[in-house]
Amino acid sequence: VSRAERGETLGDVGEFGVIARVVARLGGTSAAVGPGDDAAVVTVAGQPVVITTDMLVEGRHFRLDWSTPYDVGRKAAAQNFADIAAMGARATALVVALAAPADWPVDDAEALADGLRDEAAAAGATVEGGDLVRSDRLVVCATALGDLDGRGPVLRSGARVGDDVVVVGSLGWSAAGLAALEAGVRSGALVDAHRRPAPPYAAGPALATAGATSMIDVSDGLLADAAHVSAASKVQVRFDERLTPVVSALAAAASCGHADAARWVLTGGEDHALLATVPPGTLVPGGVPVGTVAAGSGVAHTLDVEVHDAGWDHFR
Amino acid sequence: VSRAERGETLGDVGEFGVIARVVARLGGTSAAVGPGDDAAVVTVAGQPVVITTDMLVEGRHFRLDWSTPYDVGRKAAAQNFADIAAMGARATALVVALAAPADWPVDDAEALADGLRDEAAAAGATVEGGDLVRSDRLVVCATALGDLDGRGPVLRSGARVGDDVVVVGSLGWSAAGLAALEAGVRSGALVDAHRRPAPPYAAGPALATAGATSMIDVSDGLLADAAHVSAASKVQVRFDERLTPVVSALAAAASCGHADAARWVLTGGEDHALLATVPPGTLVPGGVPVGTVAAGSGVAHTLDVEVHDAGWDHFR
Repeated sequence: VSRAERGETLGDVGEFGVIARVVARLGGTSAAVGPGDDAAVVTVAGQPVVITTDMLVEGRHFRLDWSTPYDVGRKAAAQNFADIAAMGARATALVVALAAPADWPVDDAEALADGLRDEAAAAGATVEGGDLVRSDRLVVCATALGDLDGRGPVLRSGARVGDDVVVVGSLGWSAAGLAALEAGVRSGALVDAHRRPAPPYAAGPALATAGATSMIDVSDGLLADAAHVSAASKVQVRFDERLTPVVSALAAAASCGHADAARWVLTGGEDHALLATVPPGTLVPGGVPVGTVAAGSGVAHTLDVEVHDAGWDHFR
Repeated sequence: VSRAERGETLGDVGEFGVIARVVARLGGTSAAVGPGDDAAVVTVAGQPVVITTDMLVEGRHFRLDWSTPYDVGRKAAAQNFADIAAMGARATALVVALAAPADWPVDDAEALADGLRDEAAAAGATVEGGDLVRSDRLVVCATALGDLDGRGPVLRSGARVGDDVVVVGSLGWSAAGLAALEAGVRSGALVDAHRRPAPPYAAGPALATAGATSMIDVSDGLLADAAHVSAASKVQVRFDERLTPVVSALAAAASCGHADAARWVLTGGEDHALLATVPPGTLVPGGVPVGTVAAGSGVAHTLDVEVHDAGWDHFR
């Protein structure tokens, strides 16, 4: 079948184009927040429940020669709990579907379960169920639930002109760690950051309580995720010179030049930092002010580096 | 690395052995019902929420030359909603993670979304979010939520000696349809039953309201799933001559002999019928009494057929 006969492919349209077209088919939703934010908010037994799901595929999202099964378990749980935190919610439960080859060692399955359990404990949640099927390669699909504790969810769409832009958590460390792994390095703080991200879970509810107007989990890259906030809130997100020390710290940790560190900070995603907008002058534990919200559209920054690719697209 | 050095594999231990070992690593649960039933029941915002997850892998659970992407969407949603129904709950929401190749047509992704949406509508639920990643082959991981509407969940462990055993929904049709597909048949009621199971969603809450003492989704096969109830409830499940008309009906539909039909009824799983135990004489819409609960252990039946393999194990 020729390409023309098959029509457009996922690769032609890209991750976000496909999501937009698929979401359009799902019809109206009865939920408070449907597809398009970090997590959905659905109503069960009259109460709002935050829910998110993420899939990790061996060879795409992790390599078993670079990460242990324990690391993979922690990472699969962490990226879901980070989405829960980005709604301002507290994680409560995780379920996990695992596809694995028949010749995979049971010890490795147990180690992956240990990683899920330990990351759940770090987020204050528990692992409550799952599914196990056979596949040629390892696939881990985790789904997390969260509790808003009576607050409203913090969406991507609430940023207001004049708000401060704050980040909680590390930026670019996972990307620098991946570069180190690709260069043959097998240990150290950067490599650890790639293998086992440590999202700032408690900051999600803390930012919500402090009045955050918008929030997102930095999973695609700072510029890419800020662009999601910009588009949803119809504002411009401006990173200013306060981002420079973040770059300098990474450059020192990675023993690399400013340009590499700046690119990792701007486009590296897998640290799962939280990016939020807050009323001017709002202080949050661990929060670093790095910019402001202005009228307009798009994302601006003052770092002296050219970025050709704003962030991660699974199909580009 | 030799087999001995690697230790036991998933294939050595089998699906249920691996699950038991993994669940043991997950630690104590704060939930009402943790791993080991059709779905978990977790507490969010003070309310019980039923949650289940299932993964479908291309080539293992479906073939794209036998099923359309629309069928795959319906099936992925159906098997999750059937697990929700088997707890006596009403499905409310679905989230879906999809892994697909970059050269997969967007039209097919949209068709799969249509299938998810339509099956959600059939179950009274909505599709609320998801994840999209790249992979060599299609993997669909769906997670469903359910509401108990104030009732307690119906577990596998509550069957009592003297209860009636009832089935709602079809048995063996999907397995017969798979055999037809393998023989080159590409249409008809059996093939349709394999491509798009139609679980009896409303029967889950109806059985719960009628006082069902145990319930399970028949996903591994009637004997295998009855064995789960038997083990959890510490009773014997006895299928009697009332199962014979079910076999005869399938034999007529499939134009096959009694032995084939009996094997499909006893070991075919993917119709997602509901198997429940109820107080003697309880009538449920659509429910067919097929046996009784006796003291003892294991599963007995009166069909004149030898079954060597009680049901599905993903790794055997």
